[in-house]
Amino acid sequence: MKSIFTDQHLLHNPQHEIFRGERVPCYEAVSRGGIVREALLTHGHEVSAPTEDAGPLLTRVHAPRYLQFLEGAWEEWLALDPANAESQPFPSVWPIRSLRSDVEPADFIAKLGFYSMDNGTPLAAGTWTAVRAAADAAVTAARLVVGGERAAFSATRPPGHHAGRDFMGGYCFLNFSALAATALQDGGAKRVAILDVDYHHGNGTQSLFAERNDVFTLSLHADPRHEYPFYLGHADESGRGEGLGANANFPLEPGASNATWFAALEEAITRIEAFAPEALVVPLGLDAFSGDPLSSFHLTGDDFERLGARLKAIGLPTMFQLEGGYAVEELGENAARVLNGFEGA
Amino acid sequence: MKSIFTDQHLLHNPQHEIFRGERVPCYEAVSRGGIVREALLTHGHEVSAPTEDAGPLLTRVHAPRYLQFLEGAWEEWLALDPANAESQPFPSVWPIRSLRSDVEPADFIAKLGFYSMDNGTPLAAGTWTAVRAAADAAVTAARLVVGGERAAFSATRPPGHHAGRDFMGGYCFLNFSALAATALQDGGAKRVAILDVDYHHGNGTQSLFAERNDVFTLSLHADPRHEYPFYLGHADESGRGEGLGANANFPLEPGASNATWFAALEEAITRIEAFAPEALVVPLGLDAFSGDPLSSFHLTGDDFERLGARLKAIGLPTMFQLEGGYAVEELGENAARVLNGFEGA
Repeated sequence: MKSIFTDQHLLHNPQHEIFRGERVPCYEAVSRGGIVREALLTHGHEVSAPTEDAGPLLTRVHAPRYLQFLEGAWEEWLALDPANAESQPFPSVWPIRSLRSDVEPADFIAKLGFYSMDNGTPLAAGTWTAVRAAADAAVTAARLVVGGERAAFSATRPPGHHAGRDFMGGYCFLNFSALAATALQDGGAKRVAILDVDYHHGNGTQSLFAERNDVFTLSLHADPRHEYPFYLGHADESGRGEGLGANANFPLEPGASNATWFAALEEAITRIEAFAPEALVVPLGLDAFSGDPLSSFHLTGDDFERLGARLKAIGLPTMFQLEGGYAVEELGENAARVLNGFEGA
Repeated sequence: MKSIFTDQHLLHNPQHEIFRGERVPCYEAVSRGGIVREALLTHGHEVSAPTEDAGPLLTRVHAPRYLQFLEGAWEEWLALDPANAESQPFPSVWPIRSLRSDVEPADFIAKLGFYSMDNGTPLAAGTWTAVRAAADAAVTAARLVVGGERAAFSATRPPGHHAGRDFMGGYCFLNFSALAATALQDGGAKRVAILDVDYHHGNGTQSLFAERNDVFTLSLHADPRHEYPFYLGHADESGRGEGLGANANFPLEPGASNATWFAALEEAITRIEAFAPEALVVPLGLDAFSGDPLSSFHLTGDDFERLGARLKAIGLPTMFQLEGGYAVEELGENAARVLNGFEGA
């Protein structure tokens, strides 16, 4: 399968994140990139660099002032103190209920919290360049599908599915799956389904399309009562306004069996088929893997191949977007096996 | 002035907080309590323990499930791992826009974020006992005023004005000024004004009464575009629904002069007089002090005495509630001088 990858991901290389008040190394490590690229090549998939410009699509997914903030954030951080080059900014306060989300603060750290949902999405010097290149990769993969490819894979990092219209979260800054869906629609697919198979609910993607009836968002994930992102991804969420009915969640108990996981996948596919989309986007988190340090699910390499085959059988032009997966050694192999399953089916 | 103080404040003794991703000692230190008590006694004020039970009032200010969470939080933390007795829980994720605030998570750390607006409100083993006792102190002071005292001071810690109906923030867990206003209303004062003079906007108090026209909330503070709480406290906030007009903010530029500060105080008092309340609550932060490490204002001890005299001249039964103030050595002296000014006027 044609896969898009960019070495620019190396520029997003934060040294640590804050987890429950402790500094810890980043799970979303820079080593994830090369591992995926190598495995794709080993398995005979074609890897190339982005050729498309996501720029004109960005403001159709994200708020302009959020994009401006992201683009200038590192410079703003350095302007506070040149010594900040050796450290990372983290927010302290977040605009929850009763607080305002309409007035952007002037203080840099307050802006960082204003545009964040958590304390685990570290910014680094090259974050904007890396995520901007990853956006190009996503749009390139989507346009390959528009151009007639049966499927394509945007295989670069960081992930994107937790990022909302104007906030970062869960290692995500820009929502690549939403950009890909937009590119597919521009290419002629009026109705698009997005089926998120990451261990964690794709809250950003869901919220971006919650009021839209031309994009059906579905997510198969660990119950948010127990797992990140905690505050979205419940079974009773089904879209709002015109989008009512165009969202479906399949939260599974932590530790859910593979039989349960694949049964939920079948339910999701039944819903997709009823929606009758013209293209499919798959936010491909590999953290439902049995060996993942952040997960309690049990998928194996064979299961990922089975997943690929089952997705192929839906019969839609399909764009895959790399999302989570923190068992770094096996990450590339698991991603490649989804593609193998898709191509072999 | 009769002042209420409880040694139970000593039980709220967290070791550190998280500020912009770094562990730092708590500014809201346990030493603040004794300093205030000593200064009050030195200046001839009468200090006694709470005699009233705030229990029946708590659910009139706070959401029952938030109170349940606070009461059981430390036990829940220990239940995860007995070794947690030696550490402190901090949240990782916050329910900002597009995320849900209606479904309480099962995960303890997720619940902590669900009920928090920041990463700087550390919980300790005795937090609930301490804040419960401080609530009793606030209600005791309010009832002294109901009983005919010209004024009374609840002089215990931690502060309360950032706490909302169902969230903690800025070292605050329960909103003592809101409890005091409720007790004053129960005692016959139909209309109450709350004039917050802390350096930081009293976001919790404002949000609790935003839709009420019988409680006028006013706050004189550093512009939230630059200072905590960042996402509330702007000049264009004036209440909502039935409460429209019963909220006023006086955000001042960082570094504002004392002349500016006192001019804003006059404006606020003009608004209070137009509202014609029957009682006044003053969330008394002393962090507008020139020596405060978290502030850019310039009030001196003399200015605090002037403030007390001016508040007396409003002519209302007045309940004072200790809020912020982090120049610990001078904190008690500054508080006592407000009371001196009030009594001497």
